[in-house]
Amino acid sequence: MKFSVLVEKLGDLVFSSSLEAHNTSHSNLEISGVASIDSATTGTISYIEGAKYASMVSNTNASALILPVDKTVQQEADNRGIAWIAGKEPRLIFAKTIDLFYQPYQPRSQIHPTAVIDPSAILGADIYIGAHVVIEKNVKIGAGVYIYPNTVVYPDVEIGDRTILHANSTIHERSRIGSDCVIHSSAVIGGEGFGFVPTAQGWYKMQQSGCVVLENAVEVGSNSTIDRPAVGETRIKCHTKIDNLVQIGHGCQVGEGCALAAQVGLAGGVTIGNRVILAGQVGVANQAKIGDGAIVSAKSGVHGDIEPKAVYSGYPAVPHSLYLKASAIYKKLPEMYQILKRSQKQK
Amino acid sequence: MKFSVLVEKLGDLVFSSSLEAHNTSHSNLEISGVASIDSATTGTISYIEGAKYASMVSNTNASALILPVDKTVQQEADNRGIAWIAGKEPRLIFAKTIDLFYQPYQPRSQIHPTAVIDPSAILGADIYIGAHVVIEKNVKIGAGVYIYPNTVVYPDVEIGDRTILHANSTIHERSRIGSDCVIHSSAVIGGEGFGFVPTAQGWYKMQQSGCVVLENAVEVGSNSTIDRPAVGETRIKCHTKIDNLVQIGHGCQVGEGCALAAQVGLAGGVTIGNRVILAGQVGVANQAKIGDGAIVSAKSGVHGDIEPKAVYSGYPAVPHSLYLKASAIYKKLPEMYQILKRSQKQK
Amino acid sequence: MKFSVLVEKLGDLVFSSSLEAHNTSHSNLEISGVASIDSATTGTISYIEGAKYASMVSNTNASALILPVDKTVQQEADNRGIAWIAGKEPRLIFAKTIDLFYQPYQPRSQIHPTAVIDPSAILGADIYIGAHVVIEKNVKIGAGVYIYPNTVVYPDVEIGDRTILHANSTIHERSRIGSDCVIHSSAVIGGEGFGFVPTAQGWYKMQQSGCVVLENAVEVGSNSTIDRPAVGETRIKCHTKIDNLVQIGHGCQVGEGCALAAQVGLAGGVTIGNRVILAGQVGVANQAKIGDGAIVSAKSGVHGDIEPKAVYSGYPAVPHSLYLKASAIYKKLPEMYQILKRSQKQK
Repeated sequence: MKFSVLVEKLGDLVFSSSLEAHNTSHSNLEISGVASIDSATTGTISYIEGAKYASMVSNTNASALILPVDKTVQQEADNRGIAWIAGKEPRLIFAKTIDLFYQPYQPRSQIHPTAVIDPSAILGADIYIGAHVVIEKNVKIGAGVYIYPNTVVYPDVEIGDRTILHANSTIHERSRIGSDCVIHSSAVIGGEGFGFVPTAQGWYKMQQSGCVVLENAVEVGSNSTIDRPAVGETRIKCHTKIDNLVQIGHGCQVGEGCALAAQVGLAGGVTIGNRVILAGQVGVANQAKIGDGAIVSAKSGVHGDIEPKAVYSGYPAVPHSLYLKASAIYKKLPEMYQILKRSQKQK
Repeated sequence: MKFSVLVEKLGDLVFSSSLEAHNTSHSNLEISGVASIDSATTGTISYIEGAKYASMVSNTNASALILPVDKTVQQEADNRGIAWIAGKEPRLIFAKTIDLFYQPYQPRSQIHPTAVIDPSAILGADIYIGAHVVIEKNVKIGAGVYIYPNTVVYPDVEIGDRTILHANSTIHERSRIGSDCVIHSSAVIGGEGFGFVPTAQGWYKMQQSGCVVLENAVEVGSNSTIDRPAVGETRIKCHTKIDNLVQIGHGCQVGEGCALAAQVGLAGGVTIGNRVILAGQVGVANQAKIGDGAIVSAKSGVHGDIEPKAVYSGYPAVPHSLYLKASAIYKKLPEMYQILKRSQKQK
Repeated sequence: MKFSVLVEKLGDLVFSSSLEAHNTSHSNLEISGVASIDSATTGTISYIEGAKYASMVSNTNASALILPVDKTVQQEADNRGIAWIAGKEPRLIFAKTIDLFYQPYQPRSQIHPTAVIDPSAILGADIYIGAHVVIEKNVKIGAGVYIYPNTVVYPDVEIGDRTILHANSTIHERSRIGSDCVIHSSAVIGGEGFGFVPTAQGWYKMQQSGCVVLENAVEVGSNSTIDRPAVGETRIKCHTKIDNLVQIGHGCQVGEGCALAAQVGLAGGVTIGNRVILAGQVGVANQAKIGDGAIVSAKSGVHGDIEPKAVYSGYPAVPHSLYLKASAIYKKLPEMYQILKRSQKQK
């Protein structure tokens, strides 16, 4: 694709992202694909973002770059004869550039003859059901759905239009999955919540009669687990994205547009607001509530409630600014202890 | 089911849980199902427990409630015309109430024609083997076992009566699983322990010739992994319940009646006593020993041994009361540091 | 196998591990198998290592032991009439002893008739493909490969000679797996990286056009996940061993001969040097770099870069010696706080 055509197409695509400028001297340059800045080869387009990457402009072999709005970096690219496009959101422009070059793997619509589908299942138009998929009783599957091989769908599940279930995933009974969702490989949706009541005779198993609801455009990462509750629903609201190996306990309510990074764990009955970000390995205790727009940094342990828009860190989690101070001083504890001991002796 | 019938049935069922009282004015009320307190609708029964939920009695739409032994809450329910049952263990009563209304999904006994079962396998009576299950050589399966679709059982495995293997789970060679166990979806039992010996030529793989033994009534959550050791056994004793995404390393011994919450990790050769509770994301280091009845709170890191009945918290884990004090003062570290610095200058 | 034959065979096998001594009075002793020190029975050989186990020599029922170079322990074994072999690396000698007695399960070469293999796939000689395996378009599989039941291989994957894929694992499109690798059950290789760009309209999904490369002799544990990046590669270099439930984010580069213990999580773009050891539940933040030969102890949270050969611990991770001092004083925080408060009042 010629560089001039690329710029034109991105201009259409990136309506909201202030594609600000580009250098016009490379219009006829042929762009063959996308690449990362440090492994780019001649003919490819890459992107940089942040001070950390700016120095890479001097070294990259990319023929074109997506740059932030930064005259110095643009000048450096010009000096090296690299074509460039600049905008306020280079990462978004790069995502849309990938879309121009990359066509994700999608099999054609078909129902593989080795799939075992209960006759009561209702199947939408133009769906793909891969080899060895198992679909149990009273399952409803929308139009344009992709179910990759060896996936198992238990009874009474509903799956919305264009949703994708990757290989070896398991969807348990009564789960309701919206449209445009992606469930990655070996994820388990709607398994039994961990509900055991202590008695003198040992653990009494509380049956988990509830279900899991994923609203539209939810993604669930590989090997993640979302449990159903004893009664009611575990619900993930629309546009929330969940990474790999995440645990969502029974009865949790997760708001819209959240991002939960890998290995996050939510205990039972946790309530997460809208647009909340939980970084990797965060844990949230039973019944805790996290307000809209809050951010919790990696590996934090949240034991109580967090107010909207707050940023929390640490174990136990405290406001991020306090965490920064306290964890800096943590390193000085030996020194502090010495001072204290010395001052005591002097008395 | 009429409320009076419900009370009568629970009286039979909850023999041990001191079903203390109920109001008799609602005997003819028809109860249609169970619900959570905040989403209950007319005709349903729900339950509350703890101060946190008491206020919900004023708002719930439930027609009946299971209450703690608490006159104030019972009076409030009466005022709102809500039928109620009260006992010392409302959660247990609620679990038994769910049993009266909810019938878990269970397929009928059959061996699906697409299952691939080695002719040497010995199969008990009245079993269900779902589509695409694979059972290798010399496997013994007890009576009343359920093996859901796409599960794989390696050679020389024994599975006791009434045990359930959910979809996409994998049981490795020589594992011995007791009766009345539940293995949830995509769990992996008996995979190779992480045994590599450092040498000048790199890691030398130590073959894992041992096996995993799960005694009776053990549950293993979705996507959890229990590894077999180089020699001997990794053993989980009876009635122990393990949540999702838990790692049990090679050669661990876990006692009876324990509960291991989600994302707990036990390194190699850990010994856990009976009735131990490990909360979510706890990690336990190699060869550590945790005594009977000990509790470790969420996200703690256990590096040494823990005495019986102790409660530990933190990273590194310390007695819980010390953790509470130290973590409270952690927040005051910046203040303490200022005081110290100031007092030094004054000298 | 006679003890004398065992010693002879080990002498050949353990060329590099300084097999130093053995007692000759038990040459005719028949050794029937390997066992762990605490559950060994008559006729078996076991091993001890470290002070912690030395006392077990007095109690074990093993008929033979592999010992460290330690006269006291050797004498104790002699006193108890236990045959022994001693060397500098008893664990390595034990690993090689297991090899003499244990033959891991391996099915014979065959392609099971229920496997669904795209006709475009290129299959090497002497391979095993189990029941219900699915292999999509343009996959190349080397000689001597084992693919266990219910595994799914997406299109355009390459798998080197003698590599083993265990049951229910999933290999995503374009992954390149070297020779002599082992992918354990339900692991997911090459799934989509967690790449979402925040926009005013919500998360924009960045397509993950890159791939995962595992070099030769890499092992990946059960239920672990290794994601592919938007562009370029996620690469695990040769001889690196990864335990269960580990998350490797998109674009990470992991060096040669590393060991990543269970539940470790690497965020996106992390660079790990050669021969690095990350203990259980360690988390490493986006773009962090860890130098060759570094060690990070269990449950640490690494937010910045770590120099080669350093040992780090804690959350946030600091040099191990500092961590030991600071975490010891952490327990004294309540006491320190009291002293400070008192000294302030005195002024």
